[in-house]
This record gives sequence, structure tokens and C-alpha cells, in this order.
Amino acid sequence: MRPQIVLFGDSITEQSFRPGGWGAALSDTYSRKADVLVRGYGGYNTRWALFLLHQLFPLDSTKPPVATTIFFGANDAALLGRNSERQHVPVEDYKENLRNIIRHLKESSPTMLVVLITPPPVCEEGRKQYAESLYGEKVMKLPERTNEAAGLYAKACVELAEEIGTRSINLWSKMQETEGWQKKFLSDGLHLTPEGNAVVYQEVLKVFNEAWLSAAEMPYDFPHHSEIDGKNPERAFQQRCL
Amino acid sequence: MRPQIVLFGDSITEQSFRPGGWGAALSDTYSRKADVLVRGYGGYNTRWALFLLHQLFPLDSTKPPVATTIFFGANDAALLGRNSERQHVPVEDYKENLRNIIRHLKESSPTMLVVLITPPPVCEEGRKQYAESLYGEKVMKLPERTNEAAGLYAKACVELAEEIGTRSINLWSKMQETEGWQKKFLSDGLHLTPEGNAVVYQEVLKVFNEAWLSAAEMPYDFPHHSEIDGKNPERAFQQRCL
Repeated sequence: MRPQIVLFGDSITEQSFRPGGWGAALSDTYSRKADVLVRGYGGYNTRWALFLLHQLFPLDSTKPPVATTIFFGANDAALLGRNSERQHVPVEDYKENLRNIIRHLKESSPTMLVVLITPPPVCEEGRKQYAESLYGEKVMKLPERTNEAAGLYAKACVELAEEIGTRSINLWSKMQETEGWQKKFLSDGLHLTPEGNAVVYQEVLKVFNEAWLSAAEMPYDFPHHSEIDGKNPERAFQQRCL
Repeated sequence: MRPQIVLFGDSITEQSFRPGGWGAALSDTYSRKADVLVRGYGGYNTRWALFLLHQLFPLDSTKPPVATTIFFGANDAALLGRNSERQHVPVEDYKENLRNIIRHLKESSPTMLVVLITPPPVCEEGRKQYAESLYGEKVMKLPERTNEAAGLYAKACVELAEEIGTRSINLWSKMQETEGWQKKFLSDGLHLTPEGNAVVYQEVLKVFNEAWLSAAEMPYDFPHHSEIDGKNPERAFQQRCL
């Protein structure tokens, strides 16, 4: 009965219900108006995401989501020849995979609001420190991910959004506008701090508001308690719900 | 396709996706396994909750929730003759309303795991300070809620659970086992701090684990990324999903 908003992405989406997370904040904002469902798959790139589409977004669904955020790229941008090369997807393929994901979503529901989010920036020093804290000094002489590479994927993501007329958030650029973004927004050089989560939350909300999906303009599902007459409660429910 | 866990209650449920909230923590724990849906209605008592049942839990649903928490009583226990008497429900009616809510849920799905949660304790001094911070010293000479009254509703809630063999959490008692619960767990004498939210989260998780709804024992919806062969990704998905 209630509209659904799906968050589809990698670990940055999967972790979005941890304290201060952007997914939980969206759930709170849309409480009593829409359900926010997390479909985050840690470690996944866009190639692997394609395998999930028909189960997560069945084409014959009678109630597809009203909006979906697509937030991949952090793993696609892992570098060839380094420890995480298994996750690497060439940038042209990344762009093509995103196109196919959106095509599928639009096929399941032409009116679905689709919002592309670029990967966040990468702090190579933060990644190095994090790896050393886990494995000691012997590992990670060469970074698995660079900010420059992440930037190329962000660029491809935004280009695609412009080509097909889909809304997008250039998180890679946005975060780097703030001095000290490396520690302020990133906990391990890649994943988000509560402040980093707040940036994603605010940017997603801005796009939702610019489209038609403004929580403030959506009706409550049932009367606010102040509208209920303690002696004749049925009146409020008859007016609004029955 | 995914099991649903519904959190049905008043403001303490509605606010459970704020930073440190117990609903968000459950969402995170059941990520990739079950969807946690918030059905929290600030200010509502059990009498008003009855009006929502058929819409929130349709009897003809083909996919009812696998589990539902029922967390009312904080408003039912508002005192007669005080400012919030509009919300007051006599304790016998509160118990009967809970019984009717559970009857409805079990009618919609006999296998649904239903967990009753009692209202939390009330810190009258905290309520007074909160009211004074809003309205100045002129208001709230007499408290709208007392801990003693909340305790009667908690007792009725636990009694009902025992009568009909439903699981329950006596939050009123549990919180008062910790010294300094008044400030540690309650932000305004009634609503929960992040530490108070953590108590609810841990208690709900304990009950879910004791029943059959343990996140650790539920399968992932799709392969963990470490199981995916970068060169032959389809193999992991064929084995697990197709």
C-alpha cells in the first residue's frame, strides 16, 4: 500500500543503516509516507549487479519502487594488477552496465525515479593506513584504488546520466569541495563517516525534492494524533482512511 | 521475495530510525536477509492503533510479515485529569486492545512471530525538565505520566503475553535494572537515548534469536562477493540463484 524507495548499490549502500547512515536517515524522513528498502551488496561491481536485476526488480511486479538510487563504481574502479583486480570493471563496461541497469528499471516501471550516484572520492593515504592496521606494514605497497581512477568512473556515471536524461549526484566532486574531506567524510579512505553519510543523505534528498518525491508534500498515511478526538476517534479515521 | 519484519508502535517506534535507533540497527542486522518496515505512529494509543489494523495488516495479504513487534502503552498510560488525558486508555482496555491486535495479526498469518514490548519506565523529573524547557516554569505542576502508572501497563502487557503464549519484553523492568536509567536511557523522561535504543535492539534481537528468526542463521539473498570468480561470475549466481 505504501510507495517503496530502493537503495541499490555496494557496501556504501549496505552499511547505510549503521549509526548516522544515509539510508536510515531517509527511512526516518519518509516514515509514514514511503518504505526505504536497502539492497546493498558489499564488494559488488556493476557486472555482478546485473545478475540480481530480475530478482530484485521483477519485470512483472505489480508494485515496482517509485524511486531507486543506483550507487556503484567504488569496486568497478579497483585497479588492474593490484590485490582487488577481481572486482575491476573497465570504465566503458561500467558505463554500459549502468545503462543496462537503468534500462531494466525503466522497463519494470517507466515512471520510476532513478538517481545515479557516482563513487565517492578515494583517500589513498587513508586506504594505506587502514590496510596497515589490519595486516601490518608488509602489505599495500601499491594502492588498490586511486582517487584519479574513481574520478574517471564518476565522470562516466555523470556523462551517462546526461546522455539518457537521468538525475545524478556527483559525489566524487561534491565531497572534494570540502577541505579535509579525506578524514571528514571517509573512515578508511573509501567508506563513509557519519559526516560523509550526511552528505549523501542531503544530496539524495535534494534530488528527491527537485523531482516529485518530497516527503514534506507527501500525505501522512493516517491522521496525526493531534487530529484525533479522544472521545470520537472514529471520526478522524472515517475522514482520512475509510 | 524477502521476509518482512514490521515494527508497529507509537513514537518510540516512529523515531527508531534516528541516529542510534533500534529500528535502523535491526535493518542493518537483517540487511540482505529481511526487510524491516517501520509502522510507528507518534502519540497513538492502542485504541487508535485498532483503526489501522486492516490497512497495515490486510487479512488477505499473500505475503504477511514473518514477525511484528507491538510496542504501545506509553500513551495509553497518560493520566486522567492531566494535560494528555486525551491519549489515556484504561489499563483493562489497553490489555484487551493488545489482545485484539494480536488476534488480528495471527488471523492474517498464524505463523507470524509476534513480540509484545511494554512501555519504557518514565522519569517524572525528566518529563518536568523537558516541559519547562519548552513552555517555561508555569506548566506541568502535575505530571502527565508517572512511572508507577507505566508499570501497571507493563504488568498488564506481560500478563497478556503469558496468557496467550506470546513472547514479550518487559522494557519497564529491564531498563530499571541499570543504575541511572533515568538519564542514561531516556532523553526527555519518556523517549529513548541512543543507549536506550540499544537496550531495545538487544532485547528484540534476543527474542528473535530465541525464536527461529536469527539473522546469523538466515541465508544471504545472493552470494557473498568473495564467492564470486572474477573471470566466471555467472557460476556463483547459477549455483545460488537460478
